[in-house]
Amino acid sequence: MAGDAERVYPADRVILREVGLRDGLQLTQSFPSTEAKADWIRREHAAGVRHFEVGSFLPSSRFPQFADVRELTDLVNSLGAHSLGLALNGRGARDALEAGVTELTVVLSATEAHNMANARRPREQSLSEIAATVRLRDEIRSPALINVGIAMATGCSLAGPVDPAEVERLAEACLRAGVDLVGIADTVGYGGPRQIAELCRRMTALMGDRPYVVHLHDTRGLGLANALAAYDAGARVFDASLAGLGGCPFAPGATGNVVFEDLVYLFETAGISTGIDLEEVIAIREILSREMPDETLHGTLAQAGLPKGMTWQAHAA
Amino acid sequence: MAGDAERVYPADRVILREVGLRDGLQLTQSFPSTEAKADWIRREHAAGVRHFEVGSFLPSSRFPQFADVRELTDLVNSLGAHSLGLALNGRGARDALEAGVTELTVVLSATEAHNMANARRPREQSLSEIAATVRLRDEIRSPALINVGIAMATGCSLAGPVDPAEVERLAEACLRAGVDLVGIADTVGYGGPRQIAELCRRMTALMGDRPYVVHLHDTRGLGLANALAAYDAGARVFDASLAGLGGCPFAPGATGNVVFEDLVYLFETAGISTGIDLEEVIAIREILSREMPDETLHGTLAQAGLPKGMTWQAHAA
Repeated sequence: MAGDAERVYPADRVILREVGLRDGLQLTQSFPSTEAKADWIRREHAAGVRHFEVGSFLPSSRFPQFADVRELTDLVNSLGAHSLGLALNGRGARDALEAGVTELTVVLSATEAHNMANARRPREQSLSEIAATVRLRDEIRSPALINVGIAMATGCSLAGPVDPAEVERLAEACLRAGVDLVGIADTVGYGGPRQIAELCRRMTALMGDRPYVVHLHDTRGLGLANALAAYDAGARVFDASLAGLGGCPFAPGATGNVVFEDLVYLFETAGISTGIDLEEVIAIREILSREMPDETLHGTLAQAGLPKGMTWQAHAA
Repeated sequence: MAGDAERVYPADRVILREVGLRDGLQLTQSFPSTEAKADWIRREHAAGVRHFEVGSFLPSSRFPQFADVRELTDLVNSLGAHSLGLALNGRGARDALEAGVTELTVVLSATEAHNMANARRPREQSLSEIAATVRLRDEIRSPALINVGIAMATGCSLAGPVDPAEVERLAEACLRAGVDLVGIADTVGYGGPRQIAELCRRMTALMGDRPYVVHLHDTRGLGLANALAAYDAGARVFDASLAGLGGCPFAPGATGNVVFEDLVYLFETAGISTGIDLEEVIAIREILSREMPDETLHGTLAQAGLPKGMTWQAHAA
C-alpha cells in the first residue's frame, strides 16, 4: 500500500490529527456517549479536521470507552475522512483491519526496558509481529496504512535518556518490516525542542517524501515549543487532542496530549495554515464540559480568548 | 551610565530575571509577608538567580503589596545582586532612584491608544519624560540603569496588531532619550514565535552589544515557544515569575508571566545553561503555597517532576 501515505498526508501542508477519542480517553474515569463522540467528530470535520484516531481495539469488557470504535470508524469513513485505530496485539490488529480503519497504529517502544514492561516481549519480537501485521493487511486486502508509533522516543520513564540514533535505527527497522509510516512519541513529555529538532531532522532525512507523525505530550510545558521545533525540522503531521485530554499515567493531574486548539493557534500565529477553523474547535470543547464534567480541560486559549484584531479563516481541504 | 548594562547582563549567557515580586503581585488579592519575600529572594539567589524585580514605586496606601519595596531593594543590593524597580511616573522614578535600585524600569506603550489609556498622555510626551528621568538619574548621580519596557509590543488589547517596525522605531527613540536598555513586552500574550523572532532580530540588530529584555506572558500557551524563538533571534535576557504569578487583567484566571522554573527547564533541555538550580527553584514554590493559598500556581514541571535520568547542576555566576 506504500504510496497511499502521501495521498492521506499531502506533504504541502501541516496536518493535525485528533487523537482525543483514543489517547484522550485511555485513562479518564468518564467518557462521552457515542452520540456525543459522533457530534465531536462531525463538528471537527466541519471545522476542517480530516484525521481522527477513533479508539483502541481492545476487549470492550475491560475498556468500555472504546466499545463503539467500529461505529466511529464507519462514521469517519463515511465523512471521507481518515480513521485511525490503535491495536496492542495481533488480535486487535486483525479486528481493526476488519473494522475498516484506514490506518492502523501499532506500538514499539524505543527502549528494551519499556517494551518488555509494556508489551512483555523484546523489541525484536515486536518487529517480527509488525512484519506479520503488514502481511496480514496484504492477505486480507485491507487498504489500511500501517503506522508504527515509537513510544518513549525522547526519553523513557524506565530507562531514562534515549539516543535519537537509536530511534532512527528502530524507524529503519520498521520500514524494512514494510510499514507505511512511522511516528515518534514523546510519551511522557521528556523531550525538549533541541532534542525533538535533532530527532525530526533524522526522521525527515530517513523518510524522504513519506510522512511521519509527531506525537507530543505537554507534560512539562514544552509541547508547543517542541511542535514548532519539529515543524522547522521538517515534520508535517502532528497529533493533538481537544482540550489536551489524556493525562500521563506517571504524573496524576499533569497535562496530557498537546492541546489541539492551542496547536492550531501556534501554527496560525506562525503563518502556517492548518485549514482548521480555530473558533469552532474551541466551541466544541462544550461537548467535553457537558459529557465529562469532572475532567480537567486544558488549554490556555479557550480561557484567554483570541487576540483582538486577529481573524481566522478555515481553508478546509 | 552606558556601559554598565553589559556588566549587569553579560552577553555570553542567558539571564532570567525574577519579576514575580513585582509583576506577579500586581493583581493578586494576597501577597507574601516581607519576611517571606526576603526568603524567596535569598533562596532564589542561592539557587543562582541574580536579577530581581522587587516592586513598584507607588503609594503604599493603594498598593500595600509594594510597601516593602525599599527594604527588598536593600536586601537584593546587599546580596550583590541586581535590584529592579518599576515606576509609572516622575515621582515614582525619583523614589526608586533614591531608594537605590540598580535598575529603574519605566513603561512606554507600543500603541498610542494604550499609552493614552494607561498613562493618559501621548507617547511623545512619555518619551520626553523618559529623557527627563535619565537627566534626573545623572543629576543625582544614581548608578541605576534606565530601562524602558515597551508594553503591547506584539499586539495591543485596544489597538490590535502591532508592526514590529513601529516597536523598533520606539526603541530607537528611547535610546536617543539616553536609556541604557530597552525591553519588549508581550503584555497580554498576543505574540507568536515567528512574530517574536522577527521583532527580536530587529532588536538584536538595533542594540548591537547592548542587552535588551524580553518580557513574555503565557496567556495563550505560547510563552515557552516564544522564549526559544527570541533566544534563537539573539535575545539573552528574559523575565519570568515563580509559578507564573501575575495574571492578565483582561482574562481573569488566565496564566500570567512565563513560569520561571519552566523557562529554566526549557533552556536547560536545549543545552543552554542558565546557572540556576532547577530543583531548588521548584522547591521555593512552597513559599507561595503557604503565603498565598488562594492563588493558582502555574507550571507543569512542578506537577510532573523532572524526567528520569536528567540531572541539573547549578553554575551560579
